[in-house]
Amino acid sequence: MKAEIVSVGTELLLGQIVDTNAATLGKALADLGIVVHRRVTVGDNHERLLAALHESIANADVVFTIGGLGPTQDDITRDVLAEAMGVPLRFDEAIGRRLRSFFGSRGLELLESQLRQAYVPTSGRALDNPNGTAPGLLFETEGKIAIALPGPPGEFGPILENEVVPYLRSRSGGRTIRSRVVRICSMGEAVVEDRVKDLMASDNPTVAPYAKTGEVHLRVTAQADSVEAAEALIEPVVREIEARLGSHVYAYDDEPLEGAVVRMLREARLTLATGESCTGGLLAKRITDVPGSSDVFLGGVIAYSNQAKVNLLGVAAEMIKAHGAVSREVAEALAVGARLRFRSDIGVGITGVAGPGGGTPEKPVGVVWQAIATADRVEAEGNVYAGIRADIRTKATQTALTKLRDLVAQQV
Amino acid sequence: MKAEIVSVGTELLLGQIVDTNAATLGKALADLGIVVHRRVTVGDNHERLLAALHESIANADVVFTIGGLGPTQDDITRDVLAEAMGVPLRFDEAIGRRLRSFFGSRGLELLESQLRQAYVPTSGRALDNPNGTAPGLLFETEGKIAIALPGPPGEFGPILENEVVPYLRSRSGGRTIRSRVVRICSMGEAVVEDRVKDLMASDNPTVAPYAKTGEVHLRVTAQADSVEAAEALIEPVVREIEARLGSHVYAYDDEPLEGAVVRMLREARLTLATGESCTGGLLAKRITDVPGSSDVFLGGVIAYSNQAKVNLLGVAAEMIKAHGAVSREVAEALAVGARLRFRSDIGVGITGVAGPGGGTPEKPVGVVWQAIATADRVEAEGNVYAGIRADIRTKATQTALTKLRDLVAQQV
Repeated sequence: MKAEIVSVGTELLLGQIVDTNAATLGKALADLGIVVHRRVTVGDNHERLLAALHESIANADVVFTIGGLGPTQDDITRDVLAEAMGVPLRFDEAIGRRLRSFFGSRGLELLESQLRQAYVPTSGRALDNPNGTAPGLLFETEGKIAIALPGPPGEFGPILENEVVPYLRSRSGGRTIRSRVVRICSMGEAVVEDRVKDLMASDNPTVAPYAKTGEVHLRVTAQADSVEAAEALIEPVVREIEARLGSHVYAYDDEPLEGAVVRMLREARLTLATGESCTGGLLAKRITDVPGSSDVFLGGVIAYSNQAKVNLLGVAAEMIKAHGAVSREVAEALAVGARLRFRSDIGVGITGVAGPGGGTPEKPVGVVWQAIATADRVEAEGNVYAGIRADIRTKATQTALTKLRDLVAQQV
Repeated sequence: MKAEIVSVGTELLLGQIVDTNAATLGKALADLGIVVHRRVTVGDNHERLLAALHESIANADVVFTIGGLGPTQDDITRDVLAEAMGVPLRFDEAIGRRLRSFFGSRGLELLESQLRQAYVPTSGRALDNPNGTAPGLLFETEGKIAIALPGPPGEFGPILENEVVPYLRSRSGGRTIRSRVVRICSMGEAVVEDRVKDLMASDNPTVAPYAKTGEVHLRVTAQADSVEAAEALIEPVVREIEARLGSHVYAYDDEPLEGAVVRMLREARLTLATGESCTGGLLAKRITDVPGSSDVFLGGVIAYSNQAKVNLLGVAAEMIKAHGAVSREVAEALAVGARLRFRSDIGVGITGVAGPGGGTPEKPVGVVWQAIATADRVEAEGNVYAGIRADIRTKATQTALTKLRDLVAQQV
């Protein structure tokens, strides 16, 4: 089944809101094996919406609209979609009664415009919206389906899950698309691609690389007549990727690097503490984003000033004087200090120049040292990162997490 | 000038990533008075991308593409856009040299595929990308402009700001749209709306409210023949909003709450330290997101374990036993301890249950205490926040920043 999505709303084109609904819908359709060929976003404009709908209805078997179903004058999707599908609307008494009782029970006046939300396709039906006043709408004609969903995510999501997905599942002849994401660290995108180039030539399952900050994801996607058959296609390819990339594969699907690190530390019964300067708490924040991180993470010190480095983590003032606060020596001292102060098995230290100010010819913006200390050794790595302050900070924590992950992987 | 946007990437259609770049671009174009009529999203598919580009080039004066400029086989935008615009590409020696030196200086091998990124339009030019390997591309023919931007937001944003906006400003002849955002804290959306309801009835400038986590933004937007005329329309309305909302107005435009806090602390010559438990470094991370925060922020302790609260911030073990780690008393002790350990003017303490685990009937998930200590007093506030772990942590830091801002505002 070929699908197209038409997102409706001037606020989308103006960038006042980000179209997260379209991503939610795309994911749900991929899981059902329905391929989205195109998504079109237009404003609250009759002529342009009508043109977009005519085109999408001609191209696709099923067309989804998002937004523009409410009671205000801007909300034109219901009428324009009915026009494009050639399906008249009728007033639905039951929905009308529900609207009257909804407003009556809240002591609100029911404006005439609110009753527009009680109109449904003569060929099709309403899709129940327990979280708002405007129901979704299903239009059915020979060979073409159109589904209109409201824009507020709290209404959109439940209608999609409870009404649309079951309907589409009952209509689809059975083909399913399943995906598995293999997450890879400590290896650049080009090298990953080079190692799996032959696998990427396959049609089913497909293998597609995505470069992220400091990591690479390989998405393995199969189409088949059943979930089991799709997974049987995916499994050997994932195994083959693992065989070729070894311990560079750190996790699967939605588990982020910090999640894998917390999981591995827990399995190895190791505890962790951090001593951060330029990342200012971002490393600890990422680790504590993971539910249950308190099992392994004891705490950290953000030693932003030099005095804090000395007083809270025991970095020698002479060391800072001799090598500068941004140096291999201080990164190592931060890692050792964090480990000792929190009495953890592992300590991580980061110091660098996040910018935009503070750079010098010898230590330009982007220079960062990351160090890891255990009972018997300390290791440090220096990098020069490109990008703005936020990029540099993210990359520094990514390197620290990667080093941490590699260390724990060796110990297990 | 009429614009259309073509976002390129199968991962967008599959919902694996949300198209935030398109929103960023929409905002920038609205500020320039360029109207986006339509946005089309297609996958990494030659035929469908070419069809979308042909259509958009026919409809609009300027067409933007986002994504698909990288070195991999999936990255087809450069070639397909050149085909659609009828503008051949040529190899740019300077960019080729830069790529070679970029890879060489990192000890990486330059694959042949990387050199695809050195091809630029024969009619047009490259748009400098200091944060990545693929430059943006500008195609110019009689009457039509096409601008190709890379997908990674850290590359996209700077090229848009530093190359595209100045170029478009130099080209645009006429009407301008200008906006000013008034940022408001410590006041709910309904109260804000009630106070400025009459201003929201105006057509030019328009006044529109946006509710964010723990704050409200009012966007004042005017259309006029010149920047000066638009700003003359905006200015009195902003003054009127300030007069009505007083000190609840904390900043304008893009300055976030943490930016305002750092600025106000600097103006008041006050220093800050943090003692965080459940937020795990997020508060310090938000503060150190602000360039130049080292002027006022000395550092923080993430006292995630109880032992860390005792050992690093001097919280009494008996206090934790008597009141629990999540309590007004411990929040206050974290604030006082941070202030004393870092010798700062102000200390902030946060302790709570971020979930999903760890809740009890008396202290359910979402309970958070935020405290602020100065030389002569300590104040705490308890809340129960709704939402998932990330929401609870964000709201707790928002409350702490708001309290901090209110305190400094009183002292100035």
